Amino acid sequence: MSTGYQVAVLGASGAVGREFVRLFEQRSFPVTRLKLLASARSAGTPVPWRGGSIEIEAVAPDSFSGCDFAFFSAGASRSREWAPVAREAGATVIDNSSAFRMDPDVPLVVPEVNGSVLTARDTLVSVPNCSAIILLMAVAPLRALGEIDRLIVSTYQSASGGGAAMMEDLLDQTRDSLEGRAPTPKTTPHPYAFNLFSHNTPIGPDGHNEEESKVMTEARKILGRPDLKVNVTCVRVPVLRAHTESVTVEFKDKAPSVEAIREAVSSFPGVRLVDEPQNNRFPMPFEASGQDDVLVGRVRKDPSHDSAICLMVSGDQLLKGAALTGVQIAEKLSELRKVVETAPRA
Amino acid sequence: MSTGYQVAVLGASGAVGREFVRLFEQRSFPVTRLKLLASARSAGTPVPWRGGSIEIEAVAPDSFSGCDFAFFSAGASRSREWAPVAREAGATVIDNSSAFRMDPDVPLVVPEVNGSVLTARDTLVSVPNCSAIILLMAVAPLRALGEIDRLIVSTYQSASGGGAAMMEDLLDQTRDSLEGRAPTPKTTPHPYAFNLFSHNTPIGPDGHNEEESKVMTEARKILGRPDLKVNVTCVRVPVLRAHTESVTVEFKDKAPSVEAIREAVSSFPGVRLVDEPQNNRFPMPFEASGQDDVLVGRVRKDPSHDSAICLMVSGDQLLKGAALTGVQIAEKLSELRKVVETAPRA
Repeated sequence: MSTGYQVAVLGASGAVGREFVRLFEQRSFPVTRLKLLASARSAGTPVPWRGGSIEIEAVAPDSFSGCDFAFFSAGASRSREWAPVAREAGATVIDNSSAFRMDPDVPLVVPEVNGSVLTARDTLVSVPNCSAIILLMAVAPLRALGEIDRLIVSTYQSASGGGAAMMEDLLDQTRDSLEGRAPTPKTTPHPYAFNLFSHNTPIGPDGHNEEESKVMTEARKILGRPDLKVNVTCVRVPVLRAHTESVTVEFKDKAPSVEAIREAVSSFPGVRLVDEPQNNRFPMPFEASGQDDVLVGRVRKDPSHDSAICLMVSGDQLLKGAALTGVQIAEKLSELRKVVETAPRA
Repeated sequence: MSTGYQVAVLGASGAVGREFVRLFEQRSFPVTRLKLLASARSAGTPVPWRGGSIEIEAVAPDSFSGCDFAFFSAGASRSREWAPVAREAGATVIDNSSAFRMDPDVPLVVPEVNGSVLTARDTLVSVPNCSAIILLMAVAPLRALGEIDRLIVSTYQSASGGGAAMMEDLLDQTRDSLEGRAPTPKTTPHPYAFNLFSHNTPIGPDGHNEEESKVMTEARKILGRPDLKVNVTCVRVPVLRAHTESVTVEFKDKAPSVEAIREAVSSFPGVRLVDEPQNNRFPMPFEASGQDDVLVGRVRKDPSHDSAICLMVSGDQLLKGAALTGVQIAEKLSELRKVVETAPRA
């Protein structure tokens, strides 16, 4: 039985990459050797690790030799390029990009929601889109209360979804705006300070942007519900690192009571109920940022539909929306493999 | 036939009050005498007017004598106190507060949407809630294309809805945040910089906040559709003066085509179609701010419902959401009265 893992992070200079490294320490993920990889441009950058630091290396064909787990967050094209190399070298790839998410042979996993699809033999697992993860953490607890027919979602997405550069850009543009300078967006298609805009991914022929298409198709795969109806509008708001969503859930039959929903949410792992009408305190990015838990609240009956309810959810986009889910997948695989290793042989 | 009007503005020191004054000049509203009224606290403050300035006076029982039109934007309790006084003095009150909106004897008017309910004899007219106005400017053009059954709305509301003080507070809190100081909100229940929160009005027993209840009940009254189903979630985002809304419209029968909707929106007065998928350019506060027109776009089929469509709308909260609609109501009443005055006597 292994006492630890050799681990690589591809995209170690990015916002999600840095969270992976921080989470290994915070969660005592048993790393025996850590390799931080990125493009040649970031090579040499030191990253804090266990009181010292590790320099980022340029990713190369031999980067993954000896690796047990490789965490990828460097975009879909890098994932397509390097995942076969890492798997060939014997690593299990946990991929935070969209490259393999809809591949029927690749599990797409939020451990609390559909962790049961993982097996000890999986060597490539996709982390879902951040907006899909945060939505499903709010919706999953409701499955026990009735069959869900339709989701209607409007998102309030943060800059972190566009990476560390977009977070910096939001701060820069806001500083410019406060000082009366014209906005000069570096990463956004439109001014971002004190503004919002429809999500900056290309629009398909059906009128949906890529982010919306991901949420719709990934939600169906993760919930194992190809018939699930999903309507989602993705919007970028000037917030740094937590996504918020306004969600209407229509049930096939009678909607559960608000009290039953609050109880189901409260007892679901990874979710925290924040639902204080008397204080007007509900999920918001200021409280969700930096938290592992996704915040769910503003639970109420939909006044326009007998079988529907409304709620709000807010979750850290870099943590539960990306890096935390990735590390949790590795932890789950690690457990499954230990069971296999320690099982008595026939 | 009168050649002009004696006009009073109650709440002249506020964000909406200042827009009233600016709009009288911009639209050449025929003001022969302008009286600017507020609480004693603001008395003496000079307000620019036709190259010079007028000082704000403390409102008093004789403030409205000789007035033809009195524009109120000083909150519901001030409206309840002073509207009877102004009407008794012979003024027509255009009230931007919620005080009389749901009174069956008081017209609640967005001129482009239901201007036909106004008559020459009306001496008290309510301006609807800002979020309701902006929603209905997007929805009204669709009435010609099919009967609307249900609206599902999530709002992205600006600071201006909380007045000039909340706009200042958002700027102050953002400055503090950028300089690493802890947020000290003066007007908001939660930190506002780089954050968002459920609308800061009290929550009723049905789980809705007051803003949401206003949008639901006012939409039904304005559209003359007591049976209209409305689901609305109101959220405050860190934007200065335009409200944006993500809207799903369910029709009773077949949904109209996207092209028919675009045409209907384009030809509706006071609305501008901003719908450029190829440029990822849709309605946003940055472009709606300071504009009379409400921007509508992102028109697309709802993939989760055969008879539904989705769109986004963004409109200046201080202009079309408040002061502009008020001045347009006065213009419409003025026209109606001229027709009455010049009609041949029997």
